[in-house]
Amino acid sequence: MSSNRVTDDDSGRNKEKEIASGPSSRRQTKVSPQSYKVGVPAKQKLWEEFKSGVKEILFPDEPLRSFKDQPSSRKFVMGMEAVFPILRWGREYNLNKFKGDLIAGLTIASLCIPQDIGYAKLASLPPANGLYSSFVPPLVYAFMGSSRDIAIGPVAVVSLLLGTLLRDEIDPDENPADYLRLAFTATFFAGITQIALGFFRLGFLIEFLSHAAIVGFMAGAAVTIALQQLKGLLGVKKFTKKTDIVSVMRSVWTSVHHGWNWQTIAIGVSFLALILLAKYIGKKNKKFFWVPAIAPLTSVILSTFLVYITRADKHGVQIVKDIRKGINPPSVDEIYFTGDYLAKGFKIGAVSGIIALTEAIAIGKTFAAMRDYQLDGNKEMVALGTMNIVGSMTSCYVATGSFSRSAVNFMAGCNTAVSNIVMSCVVFLTLEVITPLFKYTPNAILASIIICAVIGLIDIDAMVLIWKIDKSDFIACMGAFFGVIFINVEFGLLIAVGISFAKILLQVTRPRTAVLGKLPWTTVYRNILQYPEATRVPGILIVRVDSAIYFSNSSYIKERMLRWLTDEELMNKENDQPKIEYLIVEMSPVTDIDTSGIHALEELYRALQKKDVQLVLANPGPVVMEKLHVSEFANIIGEDHIFPSVADAVQICDPKIEQL
Amino acid sequence: MSSNRVTDDDSGRNKEKEIASGPSSRRQTKVSPQSYKVGVPAKQKLWEEFKSGVKEILFPDEPLRSFKDQPSSRKFVMGMEAVFPILRWGREYNLNKFKGDLIAGLTIASLCIPQDIGYAKLASLPPANGLYSSFVPPLVYAFMGSSRDIAIGPVAVVSLLLGTLLRDEIDPDENPADYLRLAFTATFFAGITQIALGFFRLGFLIEFLSHAAIVGFMAGAAVTIALQQLKGLLGVKKFTKKTDIVSVMRSVWTSVHHGWNWQTIAIGVSFLALILLAKYIGKKNKKFFWVPAIAPLTSVILSTFLVYITRADKHGVQIVKDIRKGINPPSVDEIYFTGDYLAKGFKIGAVSGIIALTEAIAIGKTFAAMRDYQLDGNKEMVALGTMNIVGSMTSCYVATGSFSRSAVNFMAGCNTAVSNIVMSCVVFLTLEVITPLFKYTPNAILASIIICAVIGLIDIDAMVLIWKIDKSDFIACMGAFFGVIFINVEFGLLIAVGISFAKILLQVTRPRTAVLGKLPWTTVYRNILQYPEATRVPGILIVRVDSAIYFSNSSYIKERMLRWLTDEELMNKENDQPKIEYLIVEMSPVTDIDTSGIHALEELYRALQKKDVQLVLANPGPVVMEKLHVSEFANIIGEDHIFPSVADAVQICDPKIEQL
Repeated sequence: MSSNRVTDDDSGRNKEKEIASGPSSRRQTKVSPQSYKVGVPAKQKLWEEFKSGVKEILFPDEPLRSFKDQPSSRKFVMGMEAVFPILRWGREYNLNKFKGDLIAGLTIASLCIPQDIGYAKLASLPPANGLYSSFVPPLVYAFMGSSRDIAIGPVAVVSLLLGTLLRDEIDPDENPADYLRLAFTATFFAGITQIALGFFRLGFLIEFLSHAAIVGFMAGAAVTIALQQLKGLLGVKKFTKKTDIVSVMRSVWTSVHHGWNWQTIAIGVSFLALILLAKYIGKKNKKFFWVPAIAPLTSVILSTFLVYITRADKHGVQIVKDIRKGINPPSVDEIYFTGDYLAKGFKIGAVSGIIALTEAIAIGKTFAAMRDYQLDGNKEMVALGTMNIVGSMTSCYVATGSFSRSAVNFMAGCNTAVSNIVMSCVVFLTLEVITPLFKYTPNAILASIIICAVIGLIDIDAMVLIWKIDKSDFIACMGAFFGVIFINVEFGLLIAVGISFAKILLQVTRPRTAVLGKLPWTTVYRNILQYPEATRVPGILIVRVDSAIYFSNSSYIKERMLRWLTDEELMNKENDQPKIEYLIVEMSPVTDIDTSGIHALEELYRALQKKDVQLVLANPGPVVMEKLHVSEFANIIGEDHIFPSVADAVQICDPKIEQL
Repeated sequence: MSSNRVTDDDSGRNKEKEIASGPSSRRQTKVSPQSYKVGVPAKQKLWEEFKSGVKEILFPDEPLRSFKDQPSSRKFVMGMEAVFPILRWGREYNLNKFKGDLIAGLTIASLCIPQDIGYAKLASLPPANGLYSSFVPPLVYAFMGSSRDIAIGPVAVVSLLLGTLLRDEIDPDENPADYLRLAFTATFFAGITQIALGFFRLGFLIEFLSHAAIVGFMAGAAVTIALQQLKGLLGVKKFTKKTDIVSVMRSVWTSVHHGWNWQTIAIGVSFLALILLAKYIGKKNKKFFWVPAIAPLTSVILSTFLVYITRADKHGVQIVKDIRKGINPPSVDEIYFTGDYLAKGFKIGAVSGIIALTEAIAIGKTFAAMRDYQLDGNKEMVALGTMNIVGSMTSCYVATGSFSRSAVNFMAGCNTAVSNIVMSCVVFLTLEVITPLFKYTPNAILASIIICAVIGLIDIDAMVLIWKIDKSDFIACMGAFFGVIFINVEFGLLIAVGISFAKILLQVTRPRTAVLGKLPWTTVYRNILQYPEATRVPGILIVRVDSAIYFSNSSYIKERMLRWLTDEELMNKENDQPKIEYLIVEMSPVTDIDTSGIHALEELYRALQKKDVQLVLANPGPVVMEKLHVSEFANIIGEDHIFPSVADAVQICDPKIEQL
C-alpha cells in the first residue's frame, strides 16, 4: 500500500466550505481518477484461489487464528478449552457468580418441571422422558456450550414437530415401545446431524431459514400447540390426531355436548387466568420476573392438592397418573442401528435436529449480543449435538435451548452455564423423590402452562415490522404460519424453506438495473429515480447493473439493457434530443461474472454495434477484470473502452460535457 | 426529470485538460455532492409495487407493448400473427427465398432420415416412430415457430434421456406396446410442460441450467451415446442395458471372443471413416458443406445395397429388418390419461420436455443472434409445446431443435421455416414409398452416423474457456460430464442442476466485501487490492459490501465487517497509526435489504458502539433507504450519518482530509 497518506498535507482543508454554496460557485474544476488505469490483479494460483475460497466459505471466522505461533502444550490446553469452555470460565468462577446462578437455576427448574411433562405429552412420549431430557442434556451442555444464558431442555416446537413426524411412522397408542425406540433413534441422529454441521463448518446452512420464515413458523407452531391443549383444557376424551386447525376445531365442536368436562374446565381456566395474570405482572414490572417464573409450579402444587382432596379424578378430571420414579435408565440398546427404522429415524432426526439448532443458535446469539460476548455457531452445534447423542443413550428426547426459559434465566441473573447444572440437580431430586406426587396433577393445568409458554412465540411486533420492511418476507412469514396451522408443521416448514429459497433465486434472476444521471456540479452519477436533481447526459445512456452477472440472469441483464436503450431512444425522439452513441455500463456492483455472463456481454456488444452504439464499461472489479481479459472480451470492446469510473467514461465519450 | 441539461452551458469545457497533469496541479478543489441529500423515494402503493415486481419477473420483455393504442381489428390480426408467425413472414415469401429453403430442406432431410431411425433405436422405440417425429412436428413448428434456422425432429440427447427414463418403468422387449404408450404419454406431457412454461412466462426457469452445466451434460451424453453405438458397430448381441461407461466397456470386453461380428465391424468402421472424412472436408472448406450433409444418406444407400447383394445379414450382420410403411397412425387413444402410468408419464415428460426446450432455445437464440432477429423464448416454448402435443397424438415422440441439423440448415442457406416443410415432405414420401428399402440397412451404418452426429456435441473449446474463466463453472461442467458417463443421464442432470444451484446459493451466502482506499488527487474510493495507488484514510475504515443484504448473508456480512475492523486495528497498532473511529460502509452495490439485514446492521451498530467506532453509511439505494426509514434504523444511527457518497462521508468524519 502506498505510504502517501493524504492527511500529511493540510492545504485545501478550507476549500470544502466553498462547495456548500452550491450551483453558484462555478470556480471548481472537474476531478476524476483520469490518470488511473483499471487495475487487473495478478493472476492467483489455482491452489491459492481454491484455498481462499474454501476459507471464506467454511472458516470466515478464522477459528484457529489464536492458535497460531503458540507452543504445542499451550495449543493442547487451548484445544481442550475450545471443546470444554468450562475449563476457561471455571477458573474464574466464584461464590458471587454462584449466587446468581443458583437463583436462576432454581427459577428455571420450577418452570421446566411442569413444562417438561406437558411437552413430553405433546410428543406422545411418557412424561418421565420429558424430565429425563432436563437432567442429562443440561449437564453435558454446561461443560461444552459457550452460551451463558441459554436454558437447555425439551421445547414446545421441537416436541410438536418430533411427535408429528414420529406418529406418521408408528402409532404411539398401539405400539408405545417401538414409538419410544424410534424417538431415541431420531434423537441420536439429531445429535449426529448437529455435530456434523458444526464439525464440517456448515453451520451457515441454517441461515437459509430466513428470519421471517422462522417468525411465521414459530407463531404457527404456537397456535397449533395451543389448539392441541384444548384437549386437556376442556377434558375432551375423543380428540383428533391431526394438528390442523380445521380438524381440531371440529373435534372440539362435536364434543361440546357430551365430551367436555366442566370440572376440568373450571380448574384449567381458573389457573390459566392465574398464570396469565402472573405473566402480566412480570411484564409490567421487571422486578417481579419471579412471579411468572414460579406461577406454573405453584399452580401445579395447588391444583394437584385440590384434585387429591376432592378426588376430582373420579368425576372425569384427567390426571397425569403414573409417572416413573428414578433417574434416566440407559437406552443405547433401544436405538435402531439396523432395519427399516434406521433410515426413518435418521430423516426425522435430521429435520428436528436442524429446527432445534435454529432455535438454540437464535437464542444463544440474541443473548450473546445483549451481553457482548462472542458465540461460535459451529462450536455450539458440536456441543448441542454431543448433548443430544448422550441424551439419546439415556432415555432423553431432542433437547435444545428454550426461548421462554432462557429469557427467565437471563432475567433471574444467571452468570454462567452453572444455572443449567443447578436446574439439572433439581430435576434429579424431583425424579428421585417427588415424581409420585405428580400422580394427581390434572392434565388441564399442564395445558394451561403450555398455552402460556407458547404465547410468547407469537411475535406480533416482528410480523408488523416484517410487513413494513419487506412484503416478500411477509409472504414467507404468512406462508409458514398458515401452512403450519392449516396443514401441519412439516408442510409449514417446507413452505418456509421453499419461499426463502425462491426469494434468493428471484433476486439472482431478476437483479435491479438503474439509469444514472449526473448530479450537477459534481462528477457523481446516481440513480435518476432516487435523485431528482440528477440529469441525463445527452447522447450517452448510463446504466448500473446491481448484481453479479451469472447464467441465471445474464440474458435478462442483456435484454434489460437493450430495453433501457429502446425506451431512451423513444423518449429522445419525442423530445428532439441527440441520438444515443454510447452505452456506459457502471459495473461497480458486478462482483463476479461467469461464462454465460461473458457471452451475454458479447451479445450485447454485437447488438449495440448494429445500432451504432458503443459499449463502454466503468469500474469493473478485480475478478471481473481478470475474466474480461482471459475471455478476450477486453480486447473485443477495446481496453480504451474500460474506465475506472463513470465520470472518466463520460468525459471521453463526450469531451464537451461540462463537468461542474 | 430535470430539464436542466448540462450541455446547454459550455463553460468549464476546457478545464478537463488541467486534470491530466495529475499530482502537481494542486489548484483543483474538492468536488462532492455535498449539497445533496440521500434521496428517499416516495413510498410506492402496495399494489403498484406488486404490479411492477410481477412485470419485471414475468414480462421483462413487455410482450404486449406493440399492441398498445391499436384498433381492435388490428389487435386481432397482430394476435394471430403472434401465435402463427407464418402469417407475417408468409406475406413476403417469394421464389428466391424458396430456392434457399428447398436446398436446405433437402439437405436436412437426407441427414435426418438415417438419424431418425438411429435415434428411435436409442430410445428403444420402433424405427418408424423416429421418422414420424420428423414429419408432423416440423409442420406444426413451421406455422407457429419464430426461428428461421432451427431444424425440428428427434435429437440424440433427448432420445437417450427419454429411453433411460422409460426403461426404468417398462421393459421395451417384454412389453413393447405399453412402452410405446408410455412414450406417447411422456411426449404429451412434455408438450404440456413446454406450453405451460411459455404461457405462464416461466421460461426464465430454464436459465437455471447454467451454460457450463449444459456443456458438460451434452458432452457426457454424447460420449454415452457413442458408447451405446458400440453395440451396432461391433455387432455385439448380448449388450448391457445400462448406459454407464463401466458396464458398457465390460459388455464390449467380455464379448470380444465370441460376440463381435467381423463383417459388421468391416462395414461399420469403413463407413465411419468415410463419414468422418466427409465431415473433415466440410469443415475445411465451408463451400463443401453439402459433403458431410449427404454422406450419411449415401452411406446408407451404399451399405444397404452391399448387404442386399452379399446377403451379409445371413452372416450375422444385423439389419433394420421390417420398418412400417405409411404415415403416422393416430395415437390419441394410446396416451395414458388415467392409471399409474399417468403420473410416471408426466414426470418423464416434464424432465425430457425441459431438456428438449433447453436445447431448442439455445439453438434458436444462437442463430437469431447470428442473423440479428429477435426470438421470444416464451413464444417459442408455446410453439414447441403445441408441436409435441400434436406429435403425441400422431405416434411421434419428443421432438425438438437439433444442433447438427440446424447448423447444416443454416449453412445450406435456409431463409425461413419452409425448409422444415420441405424436409417434412421428403420424410412423407420416404414413409409412403421407400421405407421397405431400409430393410437391409445394416445397424452398423446407423451407429456410424450417430457417432458422427454426436461428436459435435462435445465442445472442447467451450470447456477450455470455462476452465479459464471460472473454476467453479468448470466443476459444474465436469460434474455433469462424469455424472452422465459414470452413472447415468438422470444423475448427470441432477448434478448439473445441483451444482448450478449451489453456486447461486454460495454467491448469496458469502458475498464479497472490499476495503476501499482513496485514489490520490481525486474523490474516488476504490478497492485497495485492485488499485495499488489507493491509500487508506487514517482513522477511517471504508468497506464496500457487494451484494444485497438478506437473511442468507446478513450475519456473515456483520461478522466480516467486524473482522475487517479487527485486522485493521491490529495493523494500525503495529504501524503506530491512529485508532479507527469511523467505519464507513459503502452501500452502492446493496440493492436490497430485508428484516434480517436490518437486524444485522443494528447488531453491527451496537457492536461498533462498544468499541467506540461510529457506523456511517454511504450511498444507500432507494429501496434500502426506504427500509432504513420504516425500520427506524435511520433514526438509530442518525440521518446525519448517511451520506450520498463515500467522499462526503470521509469529509465529515475527518474534515482535515485533503481532498485533492
